Amino acid sequence: MSAVAEFDLVIHSGTVATASDVFVADIGIRDGQIAQIGRGLEGGRERVDALGKYVLPGGIDSHVHLAQPSGDGIVMTDGFESGTRSALFGGNTCVLPFCLQAKGQTLREALKGYHALAEGNCYTDISFHLIVSDPTEAVLGQELPALVADGYTSFKVFMTYEGLRLNDAEILATMDTARRTGALVMVHCENEDAIRYLIGRHEAQGDVAPRAHATTRPIAVEREATHRALSLAEIVDVPVVIVHVSNGPAIDEIRAARARGRKVVGETCPQYLMLTADDLDGMDWEGAKFVCSPPPRDAASQDACWRGLENGTFDLFSSDHCPFRYDDPAGKRNAKGRTSFRHIPNGIPGVETRLPILFSEGVMTGRIDLRRFVALSSTNHARLYGLESKGSIAVGLDADIAIWDPKIRRTIRHADLHDGADYSPYEGIEVQGWPTDVVLGGAVMVRDGELVGARGEGRYRPRALSSLTRLGM
Amino acid sequence: MSAVAEFDLVIHSGTVATASDVFVADIGIRDGQIAQIGRGLEGGRERVDALGKYVLPGGIDSHVHLAQPSGDGIVMTDGFESGTRSALFGGNTCVLPFCLQAKGQTLREALKGYHALAEGNCYTDISFHLIVSDPTEAVLGQELPALVADGYTSFKVFMTYEGLRLNDAEILATMDTARRTGALVMVHCENEDAIRYLIGRHEAQGDVAPRAHATTRPIAVEREATHRALSLAEIVDVPVVIVHVSNGPAIDEIRAARARGRKVVGETCPQYLMLTADDLDGMDWEGAKFVCSPPPRDAASQDACWRGLENGTFDLFSSDHCPFRYDDPAGKRNAKGRTSFRHIPNGIPGVETRLPILFSEGVMTGRIDLRRFVALSSTNHARLYGLESKGSIAVGLDADIAIWDPKIRRTIRHADLHDGADYSPYEGIEVQGWPTDVVLGGAVMVRDGELVGARGEGRYRPRALSSLTRLGM
Amino acid sequence: MSAVAEFDLVIHSGTVATASDVFVADIGIRDGQIAQIGRGLEGGRERVDALGKYVLPGGIDSHVHLAQPSGDGIVMTDGFESGTRSALFGGNTCVLPFCLQAKGQTLREALKGYHALAEGNCYTDISFHLIVSDPTEAVLGQELPALVADGYTSFKVFMTYEGLRLNDAEILATMDTARRTGALVMVHCENEDAIRYLIGRHEAQGDVAPRAHATTRPIAVEREATHRALSLAEIVDVPVVIVHVSNGPAIDEIRAARARGRKVVGETCPQYLMLTADDLDGMDWEGAKFVCSPPPRDAASQDACWRGLENGTFDLFSSDHCPFRYDDPAGKRNAKGRTSFRHIPNGIPGVETRLPILFSEGVMTGRIDLRRFVALSSTNHARLYGLESKGSIAVGLDADIAIWDPKIRRTIRHADLHDGADYSPYEGIEVQGWPTDVVLGGAVMVRDGELVGARGEGRYRPRALSSLTRLGM
Amino acid sequence: MSAVAEFDLVIHSGTVATASDVFVADIGIRDGQIAQIGRGLEGGRERVDALGKYVLPGGIDSHVHLAQPSGDGIVMTDGFESGTRSALFGGNTCVLPFCLQAKGQTLREALKGYHALAEGNCYTDISFHLIVSDPTEAVLGQELPALVADGYTSFKVFMTYEGLRLNDAEILATMDTARRTGALVMVHCENEDAIRYLIGRHEAQGDVAPRAHATTRPIAVEREATHRALSLAEIVDVPVVIVHVSNGPAIDEIRAARARGRKVVGETCPQYLMLTADDLDGMDWEGAKFVCSPPPRDAASQDACWRGLENGTFDLFSSDHCPFRYDDPAGKRNAKGRTSFRHIPNGIPGVETRLPILFSEGVMTGRIDLRRFVALSSTNHARLYGLESKGSIAVGLDADIAIWDPKIRRTIRHADLHDGADYSPYEGIEVQGWPTDVVLGGAVMVRDGELVGARGEGRYRPRALSSLTRLGM
Repeated sequence: MSAVAEFDLVIHSGTVATASDVFVADIGIRDGQIAQIGRGLEGGRERVDALGKYVLPGGIDSHVHLAQPSGDGIVMTDGFESGTRSALFGGNTCVLPFCLQAKGQTLREALKGYHALAEGNCYTDISFHLIVSDPTEAVLGQELPALVADGYTSFKVFMTYEGLRLNDAEILATMDTARRTGALVMVHCENEDAIRYLIGRHEAQGDVAPRAHATTRPIAVEREATHRALSLAEIVDVPVVIVHVSNGPAIDEIRAARARGRKVVGETCPQYLMLTADDLDGMDWEGAKFVCSPPPRDAASQDACWRGLENGTFDLFSSDHCPFRYDDPAGKRNAKGRTSFRHIPNGIPGVETRLPILFSEGVMTGRIDLRRFVALSSTNHARLYGLESKGSIAVGLDADIAIWDPKIRRTIRHADLHDGADYSPYEGIEVQGWPTDVVLGGAVMVRDGELVGARGEGRYRPRALSSLTRLGM
Repeated sequence: MSAVAEFDLVIHSGTVATASDVFVADIGIRDGQIAQIGRGLEGGRERVDALGKYVLPGGIDSHVHLAQPSGDGIVMTDGFESGTRSALFGGNTCVLPFCLQAKGQTLREALKGYHALAEGNCYTDISFHLIVSDPTEAVLGQELPALVADGYTSFKVFMTYEGLRLNDAEILATMDTARRTGALVMVHCENEDAIRYLIGRHEAQGDVAPRAHATTRPIAVEREATHRALSLAEIVDVPVVIVHVSNGPAIDEIRAARARGRKVVGETCPQYLMLTADDLDGMDWEGAKFVCSPPPRDAASQDACWRGLENGTFDLFSSDHCPFRYDDPAGKRNAKGRTSFRHIPNGIPGVETRLPILFSEGVMTGRIDLRRFVALSSTNHARLYGLESKGSIAVGLDADIAIWDPKIRRTIRHADLHDGADYSPYEGIEVQGWPTDVVLGGAVMVRDGELVGARGEGRYRPRALSSLTRLGM
Repeated sequence: MSAVAEFDLVIHSGTVATASDVFVADIGIRDGQIAQIGRGLEGGRERVDALGKYVLPGGIDSHVHLAQPSGDGIVMTDGFESGTRSALFGGNTCVLPFCLQAKGQTLREALKGYHALAEGNCYTDISFHLIVSDPTEAVLGQELPALVADGYTSFKVFMTYEGLRLNDAEILATMDTARRTGALVMVHCENEDAIRYLIGRHEAQGDVAPRAHATTRPIAVEREATHRALSLAEIVDVPVVIVHVSNGPAIDEIRAARARGRKVVGETCPQYLMLTADDLDGMDWEGAKFVCSPPPRDAASQDACWRGLENGTFDLFSSDHCPFRYDDPAGKRNAKGRTSFRHIPNGIPGVETRLPILFSEGVMTGRIDLRRFVALSSTNHARLYGLESKGSIAVGLDADIAIWDPKIRRTIRHADLHDGADYSPYEGIEVQGWPTDVVLGGAVMVRDGELVGARGEGRYRPRALSSLTRLGM
Repeated sequence: MSAVAEFDLVIHSGTVATASDVFVADIGIRDGQIAQIGRGLEGGRERVDALGKYVLPGGIDSHVHLAQPSGDGIVMTDGFESGTRSALFGGNTCVLPFCLQAKGQTLREALKGYHALAEGNCYTDISFHLIVSDPTEAVLGQELPALVADGYTSFKVFMTYEGLRLNDAEILATMDTARRTGALVMVHCENEDAIRYLIGRHEAQGDVAPRAHATTRPIAVEREATHRALSLAEIVDVPVVIVHVSNGPAIDEIRAARARGRKVVGETCPQYLMLTADDLDGMDWEGAKFVCSPPPRDAASQDACWRGLENGTFDLFSSDHCPFRYDDPAGKRNAKGRTSFRHIPNGIPGVETRLPILFSEGVMTGRIDLRRFVALSSTNHARLYGLESKGSIAVGLDADIAIWDPKIRRTIRHADLHDGADYSPYEGIEVQGWPTDVVLGGAVMVRDGELVGARGEGRYRPRALSSLTRLGM
C-alpha cells in the first residue's frame, strides 16, 4: 500500500530528525540523493534497518585541521586519510579543513598542495576554508575574489600566532574583500601581543610548565580580541564567525554585538564543555595533552558555553581537531616542548568524539533536544558555509546520513578511535549513544560499526556563498 | 519513473520550506496527513499545482482573542467563525485563543462556554490557553492539574488590567502549578499600579486623548514587569513566555535572563514592527484605532524588535488579534471611550495580516530567510505549545499547508479582509506575497484565494506538554 | 606668629581629613562650631593633642534602628541611651534611627513616642527617618508634607515584612509625596511574596534551620525588588536610596539605572563585607546570630560590595544596626524562633563596629583612601539627608569630630562594646585603627577611650532637604 | 573678636567651596600658601573682597597641548605664554601640557625643549605629561623610571595618528613600566587602522569635506580602542586614564571595566557636551573649525556625557585645548587641508572656556552642584596626577584660587578671549558665571577681570605619584 520505487538504498523505519522535525519514516535514496521520504517504501537494492535508532543528517565538522604544518617544522599527525576516517566513525560525512597560505605563497599554490594530499584519500566529503596569512594586494584584489567564485567561500584570519596573525589593517582589508565577494570571515580571537607579554612575565619567573599555557592566555586576552574582531566587522559591515569561544565574557561580547544589530556566528567546541585549565596540571608533562588555544577554562566557563548551546548564542559546534601525538619526537613532548610550555604543539584531537560527547552530554541529559543537536552538528554548518546540498534530510539533498543508536554505552578509549594521534583528551569519559552506520552520498561507509566503504569515496565539494552573506544582498 | 500512490491530495512541484530546509518536491497527502514527500508523486485524487510558489506549514497564531468579553460589557467583535475565517485567509490553519476565567467561575465552566461557541464554527483548528484570573486553591490544586492532563497545557497570567491582574503571590502560586504539571506560563508584562498612577496624573491634567494611552504605559512600565515576571519564574524555576514584547529594554531583560541560564520564550507582534505611538495622535479620535497594550513605541523600538526576530531573541511572532469595531456603540468610539483614553476598548485586529506583513517586510527584504519565517509563523508555536502533529511539513504530520505566491503585490484594505472589525490598523500598507491556497488536515479550504472549505472543518485540538517543559524532565 | 583666639577647645596638630583633603592643622572650636582652621592656633580653654592621629568628621550612621518594636511583641534591645553610647564609642556623633508608624497610627503620634524615649537620653545627635507603613490619603496628603517642612525629610518604605510592606500603588503614592515635597525615599528591596513562597517550600520540606533564612531570600528576590523600586522611582521621577545592598546583581541594577539617567543612592553595610551565608550554619542555632535581611551572601558578593565602595557605586556605608540579644526570651533564641528560622528576630547589632571595620579593612588595606572613608562614613550621609551643619571639618560646621589612632590594634570582643546586645557578629575579628576621642558640638564626650561626656548632650536635629532632591529644583 | 594675623593676602567673606564643602569664610594667605581659614580674619597686607562670590580652588586643566608640533610641519598656535594667559583668564592656575617625544629622540631631549619654551613665560603653574612615541628598551627601562622619580609621573600613549600610535606590544611594555614605577598611563583611544580603512573608502568616493572627519571616526572606532586599552591595562594590572571620552558606548566600556574591579579614570571635554558632528557641516569649510578627535557626536552622546559627569563615571573634565588658527597658512584652512578633511589640523581651542561652560551648563542648571564642579575642574586633577599641594582650599596648600561671580552673564566671543587662535568653537554661546579674580601662589594675577600679575609667575611643578597608583601599593 505504498510507493513502488527503484531505490539504490532504503533506510527503514528509523526515527528521522532534522533541525526542525522528528518523525518516523523510511528514506529512499537514488543516485546519491534523497529521493523519497515516506512510510512503507519498498524497492531498494540495499537496505538498512533503523528501527529504534535515530536517522540524522551526517555530521559536518566545519573546523578541522588536517595535514597542516605547525611551527618548528612539525606537521599535524592526521592527514586526509586518517582524519576523515576518524571523522566518519564519529558520525560525520563532511569535514572542512583549512588550506594554510604560507608567507609569500599564493593561495592557489597552497590549495594545489592540499588538494594533492586529499585527492583519492578521503572517507568523507571535504571542502576548504582558506587561511589568509599574507594578504597582499594581489591576494585580496585578484586571487581571493576568483577563489570565492570557484567555491572557496570562507576565509579564516588569526589574531594570534607569530607568522599567522594579521594586524588590524590586514584584517580590515581581508574583511573588505569578503564584503565585496560575499565570502564569510572566521576569526581566531586572541591578542598575540598580550600573550607575548604574559609569556615574557612567566618565563622571567621560570614558570614554564604546561599550566602556564592557560595563565598566559587568560579570558581578557580572548575577550579583547573578540570585541575587536566584532568591531572591525562592524566597521567594514560584514558578518563574522567567532570560532572556538571558550568563556562567558567572550559570549557576552557576541550577544552585545547582536543587540547592536550585527550578524555574528558563534562556535564552541567539546574542549570548552569537558576540560578545564586544571587538566593542564599533569605530572610528567601530561598536561601537554590538553594544550590548545584558547585554553580550557573553568566550571563557570563550561556552564556559560552550555548555556550558549542551549539558548542559541552558538550556531556551530565543531571539534577544532588539531592533532599531535604525545609520545613522539614531533609531538607534545618534543624536546623543545619540554623546555617551555610555549613550544608544546598547540592543538588537540577530537573529530571522532565531538558528536558522541554532544549527544551524550547534551541530548541524553535533556540540555538540548534532538533537533538542536542536528542543527549544531550538521545543518548550521551546511547553511553558514554554503554546502547547499547537505546538512539535512530532505528531498534532493545528498544522501549523507548517520544512524545513531541511543542505547549504546561506551567508554572513550583512544585505542578504539581511528585518528593518527596516540591519545584522546577525553580518555575514560563514558558516553551514551554512538553512530552505528554512516552513509555518504548514498554509499554505506560504516555498517554496524565496521568500515565497509572505500577510501576515496569522499570528494572535494566547492561551496556556494553563506546563507548569512546572501541574506539581504 | 516514480512512486505510484493513492493519495487523497498531491501538491505538485512547489518550493517546500520547513524551519530547516527549502527544497522542491511533491507532497502526497492521505487520511489528513502528509504521507509522502518526493519528486514525481502521482496518483492523487485531487491536486494543487504549486510550481513557482512556496509550500509552507500552515500558520499557527498562538496569541488570538476570540469571543472574549472586555470591560464595560463589551465583547470582541470576532467570534470563532469570523476569527478563524480571517485567520485562514491569512495563511493560518490553527489559532490558539484564550479561555478567560471570570472571577468566581471555575475554568471548566469557562471552557464549556468557549467550546460551545467554537463547536462547528471554525475554519481552522483551534486550541485554548487558559487565562487564570482567580487562582484559588481549588483551581491551582485540583482543576488546573486535571486540565493540563486533558490537553490545556498553557496558562496566561496578567500583570495589568483591573479584575485580571494577579499579584506576585498569585503569579508564584500559578507558576508553581506549572512547575508541578509541566504546563507553560505566558505573562502579559505591564505594571498595573504604575499605569494607574500615571493615568491619575494624566487625567488630573485633563490629558485624556488616545495618545495618553501610550504615555501612561511607558517602556519602564513594561520593562519592570518583564524583569519581575522573569524573576518570579526564576524563583519558582519554570520556563516562561513573555508575550507581545514591544521594545529594546524589555528585550534586554529577556537576553539577560537567558544569560543567567533561564528558559525564556519571547514573542513579538506586527504592531511593534509597523506602528508607533504617533499613530495614536489621530484626528477625531482616529488614534483609538491603534490602542493596544503594550502600546506601539517608536522607530528605535521597531528596530529592536526586528533585531530580536532576526537574531533569535524572539521565538514567536503572533498577532495578539483582539478586535473591536471603530464605529460602533460597543467599539473604539463608544460613548464612554470618548471621555477618556482609558475607556477605549484595548486591542487591535491582525490575525489575517500577521503573516503577509512578516513575509513582505521580513522575507522579501532579506531581513529573515524563508526558514526563519516558517519557524516564527508556525513551527515554534507548535513545538512550544505542544501541537505535536503540526508546525512543519514532514511525514506523519497533519496536512496543514499554506501555499504562498511571492509575486502577488497587494495593498492592505480592510474591505478585502475577512474579520468582523470595520478597520485595519495596517490600511494602505503595500505588501508582496500572499497565500493563495490553504489546506487544513488534507482538505483544501482556500483555492486561488476563494473559500472552498466548509465551516466546521476546523476542530479543537488538545495539546501535549511544551517541548520546553519536557526538556530535562 | 599666629592667630590669638579665644577658643573653647583647640584640637592640635592632627592630620585632618575631609572627603576632599588631608592636611595637618589645628582646629579652633567656639560655641560648638568650628571657628578656625590653621596652624599654631592658641588660646583654647581646653585642648586635645592629636599629633600622629587622624582628625575626622564625626561618623554619621544614617541607618540605625533603636527602641523599635519587631514582630511578636519583641522590642530591639537598644534604646536611645545604649544605642547612642555604643555609636559614640564607634566614632559617631550622629545617628539616624527610624520612627515606625504602626498601622492606624498617625506619624505625629509615632514621633511623639520616639521623641519621648530619646529626649535627654542621647550621647550623639539624632534625627529621624519616617517609616511609612500606612500611607492613607491623610498621611500622604497632609501629614507628611507638614512633617517634611518640620525637618523629617526622608521616608523609608519596605517591600518585605508582613504588616510593613507596601504594595506598588502605595509605594508610588508615597514617592509622589516625596516628589511634591522634596523628601528623599529609602527602599528596603526584597520581594515579600517571593520570600513567602520560598518559606512555604522550605517549611513543607521541614527545612527550618537558620540557614534557610538565607536560601529563602536569594539574590533574585533582592534583585527583582531593586529593579522594581528603581523603576517605580523612574516612573514617578524622584531620586531614591536603595538601602543595604548585598550583592553584584543588585549593584548592576543600580548602575544600569544611573546609566538611564536616574539619581540613585546606594548603601551597603559591614555584614555584606564580612559575613557570608555560611555563618548561618551554626551549631545549636548559633547561626541565628547572623540573621538579617538581606542575608549575607558569598565571597563573590563581598567582592562586588567592596568594588562598589571603591568605585563610587555606593555613597553610603551604614550599620543597619538592629539589635536583639541572643540568649534572651525576647532574643534570637526565643521559644518561637527555635521552631523555624522565620521566627528568629531579624537584624544584627553593629553601630559601634561599623567604622573600625571600614577603617581597618578599607583604609589600612589600601582599598579606599582616607578621603573616601570620610565620605562614606560621614559626609555623604550629611549631604544626602540634609544635615547641613554636619559631615565635614569646615568653618561654621558643628564641631563633631572623631580622633582616630591608626596604630591601635584590637580584637573585636562584645565584652568591650557598649550596646545592649549580648554578642557581636564580628566577635574575634582583628582590626587596626580605633577612635580614641570624640567631640560632639564642641564638647569632649570620649577622651582617651573613656566616656567623659554626659547623657543628654546629644540632641534631636531637624533636617533640610537632601542635596539630591534640591539639585535641579 | 578674632584672629590677628600677618597675612600677605586675605580673601574676605566669600562662599568657599571644596569638593566636599561649601561655607562662608575668610582665607588668610602667607608665603604663597593657605595659612588660615576662618571668620573675621584681619591683618592682610592685601585683600580681595569676595562677598557674594564663589571662592574656588584654581582650575587645573590636565589635558592641554601647547607649542606642540602637529603633522605637516604645523605647530599649535598657542605657546606657553598665550596658552597659560588664556587658561588664567578662564579661572585656571595650573595646566598640564604634553611633552611630545619625537621618534628617535630621548624624552630628556624633548623635555629640554619644552622647558626652554616655558621657562619664564607662564601665567599659571605647569607640569608635563610625557607622550611616549618611541618606547625603546632604553626609554622604558632606564629613562622613564628616572623621569618618574624626577616628577614626570604620567605618560600618554596614542592608539591613533601615524607616527604617534603605538601597537599593542608597545602599549603593554609602556604600561609595564608604569606598573613598575607607579606612573599613571593615559590613553587616546581610537583605532588607527580602522580610521585609515574608512578614510580610504571615503576618499575613494570623493567624500573629502570636513564632515567626513566624523564619519571616518565613528563610535565603534573609539569603543573598540577603549575596550582594548582597558583590557591591556587589565592584563598588565595597572590603572588607566581614558581621555576625552565622547559617547555612551565608550562610557559603558568604562563602567564594565570598573564592575570587573579595574581602576579606571574617565575624562570628558566641553566639545562632547556642546558640539555635534553637524557642526562639521559648515559652508566654505567652516566645519574645519570643529575638527578634533574623537569628533563631536550627537545629542544622545551629549546626554551620555552629561550623565557621566553627574553620576561619577567621569572624574576629569578637561579642555583638550589643541589650538590652530582658522585663517592662516598653517591653520585649519591651509592649502593641503582644503584638499581633504584628513589634512585639516586636528584639534580645537578651549582652555579659557572650559570652566565657564561647565559652570553655566552644569552648576547653574542644577545638573551638578558646586562641590562636584570643584572636583571635576580642579581637585580630581590634582589628586590623580600627583599635584599634592594643589586642588583644594585647605591649610598648607598652594594659594591657587579663582573667584567666580555667578551673576555675570556673557556671550562667548573669541575677541574677548586670550588665546592665540582666531576663533572659538563656542562663539555666541551665552554663559552665566565667570571668574573675576585669580590668585596664583598667593599673588593676585587677575583682579576684576584685568591682568595684574606678571608673566613668569607661573612655574613648573614636578609631581608625586598619582593617588590611584599609590593606593594599595
